[in-house]
Amino acid sequence: MPETHPKPRRYSYLGPAGTFTEAALRQVPEAQGQEWAPVANIGEALNDVVTGYSDAAMIAIENSVDGGVTVAQDALATIKGLQIVGEYLVPVKFVLVARHGTRLEDINVVTGHPVAYGQCRAWLDDQLPRHRHLPATSNVQAAADLFDEKKQVDAAIAPPGIDEHYDVQVLAEGIAENPDAVTRFVLVSRKAPIGEPSGADKTSLIVELPNDRSGALLELLEQFATRGVNLTLLASRPIGDRMGRYRFVIDAEGHVRDERVADALLGIKRFSPNVVFLGSYQRADRVAATTRDEHDNEAFKDARDWLRAIITGQNA
Amino acid sequence: MPETHPKPRRYSYLGPAGTFTEAALRQVPEAQGQEWAPVANIGEALNDVVTGYSDAAMIAIENSVDGGVTVAQDALATIKGLQIVGEYLVPVKFVLVARHGTRLEDINVVTGHPVAYGQCRAWLDDQLPRHRHLPATSNVQAAADLFDEKKQVDAAIAPPGIDEHYDVQVLAEGIAENPDAVTRFVLVSRKAPIGEPSGADKTSLIVELPNDRSGALLELLEQFATRGVNLTLLASRPIGDRMGRYRFVIDAEGHVRDERVADALLGIKRFSPNVVFLGSYQRADRVAATTRDEHDNEAFKDARDWLRAIITGQNA
Amino acid sequence: MPETHPKPRRYSYLGPAGTFTEAALRQVPEAQGQEWAPVANIGEALNDVVTGYSDAAMIAIENSVDGGVTVAQDALATIKGLQIVGEYLVPVKFVLVARHGTRLEDINVVTGHPVAYGQCRAWLDDQLPRHRHLPATSNVQAAADLFDEKKQVDAAIAPPGIDEHYDVQVLAEGIAENPDAVTRFVLVSRKAPIGEPSGADKTSLIVELPNDRSGALLELLEQFATRGVNLTLLASRPIGDRMGRYRFVIDAEGHVRDERVADALLGIKRFSPNVVFLGSYQRADRVAATTRDEHDNEAFKDARDWLRAIITGQNA
Amino acid sequence: MPETHPKPRRYSYLGPAGTFTEAALRQVPEAQGQEWAPVANIGEALNDVVTGYSDAAMIAIENSVDGGVTVAQDALATIKGLQIVGEYLVPVKFVLVARHGTRLEDINVVTGHPVAYGQCRAWLDDQLPRHRHLPATSNVQAAADLFDEKKQVDAAIAPPGIDEHYDVQVLAEGIAENPDAVTRFVLVSRKAPIGEPSGADKTSLIVELPNDRSGALLELLEQFATRGVNLTLLASRPIGDRMGRYRFVIDAEGHVRDERVADALLGIKRFSPNVVFLGSYQRADRVAATTRDEHDNEAFKDARDWLRAIITGQNA
Repeated sequence: MPETHPKPRRYSYLGPAGTFTEAALRQVPEAQGQEWAPVANIGEALNDVVTGYSDAAMIAIENSVDGGVTVAQDALATIKGLQIVGEYLVPVKFVLVARHGTRLEDINVVTGHPVAYGQCRAWLDDQLPRHRHLPATSNVQAAADLFDEKKQVDAAIAPPGIDEHYDVQVLAEGIAENPDAVTRFVLVSRKAPIGEPSGADKTSLIVELPNDRSGALLELLEQFATRGVNLTLLASRPIGDRMGRYRFVIDAEGHVRDERVADALLGIKRFSPNVVFLGSYQRADRVAATTRDEHDNEAFKDARDWLRAIITGQNA
Repeated sequence: MPETHPKPRRYSYLGPAGTFTEAALRQVPEAQGQEWAPVANIGEALNDVVTGYSDAAMIAIENSVDGGVTVAQDALATIKGLQIVGEYLVPVKFVLVARHGTRLEDINVVTGHPVAYGQCRAWLDDQLPRHRHLPATSNVQAAADLFDEKKQVDAAIAPPGIDEHYDVQVLAEGIAENPDAVTRFVLVSRKAPIGEPSGADKTSLIVELPNDRSGALLELLEQFATRGVNLTLLASRPIGDRMGRYRFVIDAEGHVRDERVADALLGIKRFSPNVVFLGSYQRADRVAATTRDEHDNEAFKDARDWLRAIITGQNA
Repeated sequence: MPETHPKPRRYSYLGPAGTFTEAALRQVPEAQGQEWAPVANIGEALNDVVTGYSDAAMIAIENSVDGGVTVAQDALATIKGLQIVGEYLVPVKFVLVARHGTRLEDINVVTGHPVAYGQCRAWLDDQLPRHRHLPATSNVQAAADLFDEKKQVDAAIAPPGIDEHYDVQVLAEGIAENPDAVTRFVLVSRKAPIGEPSGADKTSLIVELPNDRSGALLELLEQFATRGVNLTLLASRPIGDRMGRYRFVIDAEGHVRDERVADALLGIKRFSPNVVFLGSYQRADRVAATTRDEHDNEAFKDARDWLRAIITGQNA
Repeated sequence: MPETHPKPRRYSYLGPAGTFTEAALRQVPEAQGQEWAPVANIGEALNDVVTGYSDAAMIAIENSVDGGVTVAQDALATIKGLQIVGEYLVPVKFVLVARHGTRLEDINVVTGHPVAYGQCRAWLDDQLPRHRHLPATSNVQAAADLFDEKKQVDAAIAPPGIDEHYDVQVLAEGIAENPDAVTRFVLVSRKAPIGEPSGADKTSLIVELPNDRSGALLELLEQFATRGVNLTLLASRPIGDRMGRYRFVIDAEGHVRDERVADALLGIKRFSPNVVFLGSYQRADRVAATTRDEHDNEAFKDARDWLRAIITGQNA
């Protein structure tokens, strides 16, 4: 009798091996032993999921130093059929590497991903005041470009461990400005039924404000506040049609199956001309939301029972 | 075959005939031709309903000059099993009456219900600067007391038309300070299933604030504001246990069967340690609530459909 | 050489001797040994101050059971030239008294000030279910009326100690519903420069809402909240011109010479079509306001220094 | 007698000639006929001003499609001694250029600044589905790179008019996705006394939230709302020390010499542990703020007069 092999799941991520995105993917238990497909950018990763080529994509969404990954935020705001199913944090550390024999004083052109470059800028300006920067497409590609003659680069900003993948010499370690820098990644899949809350969850949304009145952002925040839902992120992104029109990327504490979050979403759906639900998923930091009793599921149930009794005339 | 006679309904009201309360009761179509039971005070009227002696009671709840009828507000806050089923407005006008032959300059003691006295005070202070006031239990009783020798009163503040009930002489008309004064009455019955909205409704509540934090009143008002529910009345009443603790008497635009009102009530129920629903009823002024589309029943339904699709993974 | 005698100060209060108002006046150190003028009602007391006949008047402003003394609130809202300079609390306890020889079962008519009657109603309904109530003009007058044959009253609700003033027998003590009931009195003088804060102060205001928009009450409360000013009282009173228009009687923590309170008042003055400042005075309970550092006088001064530096280009 | 020549003013801008930044600088009347110094990036431009090498720098701050220029926002948040003195809008349009003789079907590698590439991506994906992107350091440099053999690029995304500077052929015009795209530039100088309002002004701030409580952003927005100050921009940027801590880049309607704006700034200064004033300057769109009378300078002055009268006891 033939053995059945379940089809392996495929995960797209910003490659090649050695990137921070790969480090995020290594944190996903279900992804171990499955197929990992390296891609060149976030758009490609999400497209793999939309088309069904991959089952999920790991993408960077925010950096503690550099802020939101706007291309990821905008992609999630506009591509339909996707949802966030997990969150992962990867510490961000950088080393400066070069071909063997290179001395610091020989360096003119430093390559590096623009985000990495921003985080190492202070060190570079101090140590290599005359350097020029050439953008690279990923932190690992930066190291690879050292061996591409056409690029004419002298040094690269890369993640620790890069010397296991490339024959480079580490000239300096810990060159990023902030030693506690961290990047937040999310795992994105196609839409599917939402599972149960873990007790320490986040819900991500993108909300457009009605443009017919001032104070709309205040009204939006009140929708969360009156239900006792705290926000961990509020970032604005232009809608793009004209200057001064924004949508807001929001991460709220709690899960859409928590009553207070569901109720806040209902309020926001009524209020906003366009709201995109991006997902409810377990928080990387496993911190439970701090709420008052009045915002517990029980309080919601009690209130509904009370209202039903009123309407049927059964209340005391 | 014997004819069946439906049992007549009984209405309690602050009597005797001729009071403003009776004028309010005359506005109730269903009360015409039924039994009207005059009582001495609001407590008695409500008690008649609680015990089942009467089917409904008409009571004054607010005066445009004098403010809330606090005894009525407090009674509704504490007596269980009642609800407001209708609202009626009666213009408040007063005449000064006396026994035939009395001249203005003969008047020393003026009797009148304290509320009536307050509204006619300016005229009396101006025309009869040396008068004294003796409180009466109702505006009609004031006129009756002219003929009670023990009371030793010279004139009475009474409603227009009082000379049809008592043999008095009208010395002055329109003596109330505000010619547009009006008293708001409510018809109170026992709890029963809530009917359908008329499209121009009010919902009355009594809400206690949580006492563990400042800003609680602001939070209460936000519960209405985020659902687009306007208030027509917000009055504070002491809870009575110690100085500085209040409950709030609230009239909100709309009906508990309007989605936005129901949703606000749910929020308030969760928030408040003690909330009393007093009823949803047609407004006396027949003014429909002004709302935005986002607070329509349709918006609530659409939002629920959207949320359901999210949770089941069916949303686009 | 002739001795100079300073003219004694005169205090008007709701008399006669033995009233709770007199008990409040006994709490005022400066009033001891001065002239005390008993009057018949609050209007008279305030009028004495306006005309200069008295230097100050003690009036009841709020009762922990019965709520605001609306006639006092309305008088302060409309009479110009007055201000509150002190606050005093008097515990409210009642005894039932009668002529000697009266037994409980003999009592038909009970006299008492309406507020006192409200607070003793539960006891009376329980013990004397068939009694009738005759309103009296003060708690002391009620006892006096026992000896006025025309009044035909059998018992009176009066303050403890009444038997020192009148030859009455105490039939029951502690008949008020709430053993912790207290009445709040304020001492009112003519306008004068405002003194320094004591550190535990209240500021009283009467504020009319702009009537051109909903949400105005919320905006009013925000004016206090954004400056960290807590409210101890918010009571609505009809403006009186038509149903549904209210002014609000507000007691705020702090003194008009506290920066945060002054700033809140400026905001309210701009917002409100009509605001009456009633005074800043030491709290009877001597409880200091709880504020955060950001609302201290120092924070206000620092912010002004910062703004000045910005405008002059001197900031770092 | 020797003639005196005033020292010309120097303006730093992202060069070379032909960039959108240069187009912004051409909108500044005072800059015409002065010295224009092209620089390689925003940090260099601002540094020129800090060191005194230049008198002002023109920098891009926001794009209607791509959002805030985060490097500019972060630089203004952290570099001391600078202020914004003007705002300019430049329409963002792109053409695709190549060496003469190139046909669309010959194009493999397209160079362009990453922001420009993002805005032209849809057109490129549609017309050149197999193209690859090579980042360029500016829109003008992209065109220059066509003639750098080492770059091996076939086409460049460049601003209209580029063919006046380089010997290129325009293959397609209007290739940006949004025909109304616009970039907002600000002119930055060293700190100096703030001038008078023009009547159509903006004030830019960077505000850190207190991190000891939830709802802090709501409190921040209330500081503006209670003074009637509308916001035209609210963008979050990470503070950088750890995930979840943000500062907010804010553009408010009005000028720091407008009373309502000054008052809001005072409130925010008290509230925020760290607030940076970036400048008050005339709006590029010349749109005056819409305010209510209660937020006019006159209302502020009246309120102060009223408060002064209260404290001195001079009020009616």
